[in-house]
Amino acid sequence: MWTNEVDVSITPRIWVKVSEPEEVSEAAGEYFLNSLPEKLYATDKVALLIGNLSYQNHPQLKAPMVDVYELTNLLRQLNFKVVSLLDLTESEMRNAVDEFLLLLHKGVYGLLYYAGHGYENYGNSFMVPVDAPNPYHSANCLCVQSILKLMQEKETGLNVFLLDMCRKRNFHDDSTPNIVLRVTANIVFGYATCQDAEAFELSSTSFINGVFVKFLKKRLLDDEKITVVLDRVAEDMGQFDATKGKQALEIRSSLSERRALTDPIVPGDSHSLAHVHSRQWAKAHELPESMCLSFDCGVQIKLGFAAEFSNVLVIYTHIIKKPVDMTFCQAHVTDFSQDLDVDPKEMNRETPEETGIYLLSSSLPQHCLYTRLSSLQKLRVVNFLNHQNRSIL
Amino acid sequence: MWTNEVDVSITPRIWVKVSEPEEVSEAAGEYFLNSLPEKLYATDKVALLIGNLSYQNHPQLKAPMVDVYELTNLLRQLNFKVVSLLDLTESEMRNAVDEFLLLLHKGVYGLLYYAGHGYENYGNSFMVPVDAPNPYHSANCLCVQSILKLMQEKETGLNVFLLDMCRKRNFHDDSTPNIVLRVTANIVFGYATCQDAEAFELSSTSFINGVFVKFLKKRLLDDEKITVVLDRVAEDMGQFDATKGKQALEIRSSLSERRALTDPIVPGDSHSLAHVHSRQWAKAHELPESMCLSFDCGVQIKLGFAAEFSNVLVIYTHIIKKPVDMTFCQAHVTDFSQDLDVDPKEMNRETPEETGIYLLSSSLPQHCLYTRLSSLQKLRVVNFLNHQNRSIL
Repeated sequence: MWTNEVDVSITPRIWVKVSEPEEVSEAAGEYFLNSLPEKLYATDKVALLIGNLSYQNHPQLKAPMVDVYELTNLLRQLNFKVVSLLDLTESEMRNAVDEFLLLLHKGVYGLLYYAGHGYENYGNSFMVPVDAPNPYHSANCLCVQSILKLMQEKETGLNVFLLDMCRKRNFHDDSTPNIVLRVTANIVFGYATCQDAEAFELSSTSFINGVFVKFLKKRLLDDEKITVVLDRVAEDMGQFDATKGKQALEIRSSLSERRALTDPIVPGDSHSLAHVHSRQWAKAHELPESMCLSFDCGVQIKLGFAAEFSNVLVIYTHIIKKPVDMTFCQAHVTDFSQDLDVDPKEMNRETPEETGIYLLSSSLPQHCLYTRLSSLQKLRVVNFLNHQNRSIL
Repeated sequence: MWTNEVDVSITPRIWVKVSEPEEVSEAAGEYFLNSLPEKLYATDKVALLIGNLSYQNHPQLKAPMVDVYELTNLLRQLNFKVVSLLDLTESEMRNAVDEFLLLLHKGVYGLLYYAGHGYENYGNSFMVPVDAPNPYHSANCLCVQSILKLMQEKETGLNVFLLDMCRKRNFHDDSTPNIVLRVTANIVFGYATCQDAEAFELSSTSFINGVFVKFLKKRLLDDEKITVVLDRVAEDMGQFDATKGKQALEIRSSLSERRALTDPIVPGDSHSLAHVHSRQWAKAHELPESMCLSFDCGVQIKLGFAAEFSNVLVIYTHIIKKPVDMTFCQAHVTDFSQDLDVDPKEMNRETPEETGIYLLSSSLPQHCLYTRLSSLQKLRVVNFLNHQNRSIL
């Protein structure tokens, strides 16, 4: 085999020793170049989407909610297992990344999308949690390259980072971490903006995308190598006059194979542990079934559930039947875990919008009372959605 | 005009204020996206190619000579004004960059190719001159991002960097320069290797390309956006088993327009100064005409010239006529400037190879005496070739 005839000497820009005469190795190279490309596939596809907007000590953002929501739907169409989370503190972000890493194994396509405050120092990207102090430094934030290093250890088939955040330098942070990565030739960064520059949202009274996702969502389903997709998004964004000279998509890629987000999934012979985590993910994202509750007074209530994000659950109640002699009847859900810290004013409202539900409202049944439970990760990160059916009248 | 209706507020991931209702600006965006792309062109195309191989205090390299030579020929086919230089010291590299910058103005495509020792610290790339001490640090080297910043000031239309060097961290250099670039959305880096990794040459007794140019040269003339070209080179390189897991091409691009190295040149209304520098470049790369010299003794000598690089000139002499009664006659060039430091043993040899001429040898006339003058920049950087015709018998 040709591979065995090669002895690589690792010295800076020094010879790779090829034991075959050069003519032969050239010919072998040609053979490889002209052979048909093998059909590429993922052993699984997993995406972690985090949108931070309700900052405790920094300006609030708006677009991450709709950006994460729409990308979640698109990535699901591409058969990604998606964990989409809003408003995470530092420890919650670290937990989310740990859970994400548990879903990765050999050949899996891993994708991380982050929308929120961020910065870049010396080539390293930092994501800012909602509870970060002001000013923040690297110890308060999550370093994307550190996550990449852990992903490489999982022997992932493709590592995609879509970073929808600023890349200005943080002068409060003078640490210079040296994260040495391996040459896996399967890393793609899509930065919403250039080094030292900012990423923008468009002002609007309604919920609209940030500039990056506004253009990304039109191309994300394209059946092309991910670098080609991002290159087209860069061209689209380049024609948007509002951010000309201020924000431009930057691609950073070492992807040597023609891998695409549309590639099929062919499960590999992965460890049983991977299957366990995969089942956990599926279970965590299974909505409680809607249910009918009958009460002694003769009232029948329908209780329905919808997920806005992995950590945001919507509960709606509808009165199916009430005794004719009953003058007033309302079905309120109440008595949630103290951890959730739900504002009673945002529970059991007559319109979804009153509770902060904007994205799902058109797909919810009408004439109900609506409750939005956010921050479900306070109960337990990832594996929480199926434990939320203990609400009562 | 739609542009005038936009008021951009520069705050980190905060609103871009659009004074029109969102529906209108969305529609305007669609209009821009669907309009036909304008035909893109360069006002000029200029390339600086530097190959460092004869290091004074570091391991010698071999491939940069043939890499620079072949890329020079390819870029000339693309109508680039090419300055190709071998073995430059720090001050010579700085001079070469200064001359390169003089050739750039608004809309020019600027390309820098560097092959030699290098390193990358905190996202900044450093090129190592042949006279760099051991160990070297940033003060001894040229920072690519600093050159890019100066290119941006010239309002270049496209900035391409092809860096054929190692990207290992240099632990002897603890400086952390902060070079803040503008968002010009026209910057493309093609790195021969990934961050923290090395670039390789193939060992061979003959002169063959380094790994990067081995694959780059097959695609460089493709009439495609430069990012597409590099992406294909990355795929080709990815199939080369000798460097798998050790070297992978990395692309870094913010190029928002479909600019290609094949784009036509349409000279703009640039300053007359630009024309002066452009003429200087042309004059510097004009070879002296071959000439016939007649001597009193009856001998006629033909003196010919060829350029291997911008700073490497080949002179060959051929005896056209000699008196029948003359038993021995040789035409030697001699008496060069002390600055050139030419080894007499490498002058007036019977084969090109004896003098170090490997790349041009097949295109030189036979039965001559050959002399190779390298380091012509010692006389004067760039504008030197046309002053080299003072050799005598």
